[in-house]
Amino acid sequence: MVLVNGQPLDQIGISDRGFNYGDGLFTTLVCRAGVPLLWSSHVERLTSGCQRLAITAPDLTLIRAEVEQLAAGDDCIIKVVISRGYGGRGYAIAGVGAPNRVLSRHPLPAHRQQWRQQGIVTVLLPQPLGSQPLLAGLKSLNRLEQVLLRQAAVSAGADEGICVDDAGMLVEATAANLWWRANGIWHTPSLERCGVSGVMRQLLLDTFAARGQAVRQLCVAATALDEADELMLTNTTFGLVPVRRYQQREFTGWPAISHLQQELAEVMA
Amino acid sequence: MVLVNGQPLDQIGISDRGFNYGDGLFTTLVCRAGVPLLWSSHVERLTSGCQRLAITAPDLTLIRAEVEQLAAGDDCIIKVVISRGYGGRGYAIAGVGAPNRVLSRHPLPAHRQQWRQQGIVTVLLPQPLGSQPLLAGLKSLNRLEQVLLRQAAVSAGADEGICVDDAGMLVEATAANLWWRANGIWHTPSLERCGVSGVMRQLLLDTFAARGQAVRQLCVAATALDEADELMLTNTTFGLVPVRRYQQREFTGWPAISHLQQELAEVMA
Repeated sequence: MVLVNGQPLDQIGISDRGFNYGDGLFTTLVCRAGVPLLWSSHVERLTSGCQRLAITAPDLTLIRAEVEQLAAGDDCIIKVVISRGYGGRGYAIAGVGAPNRVLSRHPLPAHRQQWRQQGIVTVLLPQPLGSQPLLAGLKSLNRLEQVLLRQAAVSAGADEGICVDDAGMLVEATAANLWWRANGIWHTPSLERCGVSGVMRQLLLDTFAARGQAVRQLCVAATALDEADELMLTNTTFGLVPVRRYQQREFTGWPAISHLQQELAEVMA
Repeated sequence: MVLVNGQPLDQIGISDRGFNYGDGLFTTLVCRAGVPLLWSSHVERLTSGCQRLAITAPDLTLIRAEVEQLAAGDDCIIKVVISRGYGGRGYAIAGVGAPNRVLSRHPLPAHRQQWRQQGIVTVLLPQPLGSQPLLAGLKSLNRLEQVLLRQAAVSAGADEGICVDDAGMLVEATAANLWWRANGIWHTPSLERCGVSGVMRQLLLDTFAARGQAVRQLCVAATALDEADELMLTNTTFGLVPVRRYQQREFTGWPAISHLQQELAEVMA
């Protein structure tokens, strides 16, 4: 089920700039009984993302109504894509029409609970992510790096790959943010030069801040993970996913992650 | 006029990976009297690009026939987009269908001759291109950087912007390759870490090589342009375009560029 600019279509015109240049952004919502979770965080991400790309801000009331229309009271995933619109002359944006919005409904992944409970296998990817401060933090439609890096992880027999930037500093996984617990404190890479600032990552940062709980956002090489007691990946679709294996190292228990999973169960569905 | 997988449609399904992730590539052909110029170079670009992205190589005989069908004996531009196809699970490519090919016809830009004869105004852009060897040289569908950088050039009152990488080394313009002539020799940036290896750039390299004429591909900072007698941008749509102004510097004549334009008139239409 798909709505393109509010119409029940499953096609987009080929002059759309999302198709031609990846000129747009997206966010992925989890709905529980038809209600989108963490709505205000997704709104913030769409609004600030459009502002950074100089895309006219979408009508969020309209998007909310369309999310609920597609979700129809069910548990599901709704993907919201905003592209800059149709047209323009090559890369130049003069003359581009209104933004296009494409909402599509998808089932919750079948392996979601399994990943949360049993953890996943990860590898450190040798191919770095490119650094681009203009796009750092954004979930833009330019995701070809992630496609290639995910494929590298799959080829290595892993569920996910941990990515570094071209200076060898930790960034994230291909489709999730990275966290590790060391010396009783949660750590996550800062995302000034690349990476996606995920809604679930922001929820954790806000949660820790509200409690006055220390958390470190830092720029650090992958060797920092050698000191981790627990390692987890986060995104809105899967919530908090423990890492069962990273490189040669096995994690057989993850008490801090399990505790967080219980605390945040309400917003993770 | 558009052909989507051979059908006269102007829409693509929203599960196409080009739309969702920029997971594909493109090339832009100039047709003269319906015949695509530099066809073998475009074939080489599409074939090697698909190979690098692990996209099933398209049927080039079919694409050639579709190009001629759309061109219908006229002078025009045909854009050929190859996306990985529909589907997949997120970034993972397992289960993706056959590649989609989208061919569209466009008029030759009205200002094409003017740019060639009178030259254009360029600025050096302060925002660098990101480096990503996995994508360097490819004309992938991930072009959001170029959209933003072109907008920066337009905002600075220029026709085009000269881009450097994050080490400050010259790369290209937002939609063209960069050349400069110094001490009687043509120079162009090497493209190991970013940039698009253009068909017109390759034509020039091949032409110079066939003549035994020296040419330098190099990794060098923008200050190298201070020694240039002539500066030009090249792409298939515009051919060889002289730079009339770069930063504060005016170029009032470009004998070497004019000479090259005459020599290559046959393949530039």
